[in-house]
Amino acid sequence: MSDFRSLHRAGEPLVLPNAWDVASARMLAAAGFPAIGTTSLGVAAANGLPDGQDATGEESLRLVRRIAGLPCHVSVDIERGSVREAVAVAAAGAAGINVEDAMGPVERQVRLIRAVKREVPGLFVNARTDTHWQRGGELREALRRVRAYVDAGADGVFVPGLRAPADIAAVVRAVDVPVNVLHEPCGPTVAELAELGVRRVSTGSLLFRVALAAAVRAARAVRDGAPVDGEGLPTYAEIATGA
Amino acid sequence: MSDFRSLHRAGEPLVLPNAWDVASARMLAAAGFPAIGTTSLGVAAANGLPDGQDATGEESLRLVRRIAGLPCHVSVDIERGSVREAVAVAAAGAAGINVEDAMGPVERQVRLIRAVKREVPGLFVNARTDTHWQRGGELREALRRVRAYVDAGADGVFVPGLRAPADIAAVVRAVDVPVNVLHEPCGPTVAELAELGVRRVSTGSLLFRVALAAAVRAARAVRDGAPVDGEGLPTYAEIATGA
Repeated sequence: MSDFRSLHRAGEPLVLPNAWDVASARMLAAAGFPAIGTTSLGVAAANGLPDGQDATGEESLRLVRRIAGLPCHVSVDIERGSVREAVAVAAAGAAGINVEDAMGPVERQVRLIRAVKREVPGLFVNARTDTHWQRGGELREALRRVRAYVDAGADGVFVPGLRAPADIAAVVRAVDVPVNVLHEPCGPTVAELAELGVRRVSTGSLLFRVALAAAVRAARAVRDGAPVDGEGLPTYAEIATGA
Repeated sequence: MSDFRSLHRAGEPLVLPNAWDVASARMLAAAGFPAIGTTSLGVAAANGLPDGQDATGEESLRLVRRIAGLPCHVSVDIERGSVREAVAVAAAGAAGINVEDAMGPVERQVRLIRAVKREVPGLFVNARTDTHWQRGGELREALRRVRAYVDAGADGVFVPGLRAPADIAAVVRAVDVPVNVLHEPCGPTVAELAELGVRRVSTGSLLFRVALAAAVRAARAVRDGAPVDGEGLPTYAEIATGA
């Protein structure tokens, strides 16, 4: 496998699909993705836990332990996270983590990133700032935060909700580490993001939500006597082995 | 809520979609299904466990504990199962179970069904025989087995893989309890099964496989710059609350 870091290429970004359980991870690895992320929203909802309240740590760790043997790198969303969690997922085989600031104090996040890089220097730390997701597009604050996180040792930065091409380009110019943008169905394509210098495009909870919508649609179709598209459904062997 | 048993109506069968995690269960309950099943294949694969080897019991119990509060009945696939597991899922709030013979001795299954009905008489025991799934359509053996299971106290019988209308009708005639048929994309519709006297139609692993296929398709579309259908995707609030 290529080094996880080297997959973040200018002009040819890493497309990082996010899994929520072992089966989705296996299927994505089998589809040829060299790395996958986890989605804390998906892991939380799949397990009936609240998202964004750091309740998902145990489940995320459980998941990474179960998928670490797949032929792909795994980057784990540990939400706000802690050094302890970062060390645990690294020990379980993760190549990287996402840590989010949820707009708490910059200093807390800087201390966390420094501590993680000191304890597990090889772990790719993707530092997320929630300026654009929790609030409406404060580019100046986003730039201040991503610079501070890179100075603290972050290996990449992530600003979910960043959509305007000029803003994306500004973040790319502001730091010399890979910039991660969240793919959105109505937003720029991967090719357009590549043009802007983005080096990682992740899918967040999109695949999880697509999966649930498809399942419910199929259930309604069965109930209503409408056709269910059975084309391309994975067999048990494919689900179980990822072959 | 109606009694689970009374949902098995001649002429208007119970359509029982099968969930594999909390989110899929919530979404199916929110879609108006009055009862949901679990799929042992889905629960196994979602957790990276082998199916059909009784390794999924702990995960199925964990799942039923987490979804028992939903406004729908839950029937749990406990694979070959045991009295201990049946008692545990009933205590966790399940309305019913599926137990499969995987073509082991009839006597083992008869003893199990008797023991379960003695310990938890209110639990709806759907007795599955694998004559048609593991082997090719031995109707005579299927009839022998479902009769034996009903004599032992089974509340319903299930012959996955049963497809031919005449065979379905023969099973319905053979027993006076509800007959469950597995929906298959190319098989009879619910309306056609209703005509044959079937009183429960379940989806097995279909929804789980549809979900995975949709997720992988969306991931490939993101990677390849193709459109992702974002219509009708559930919001976080819908996923988390089932509202």
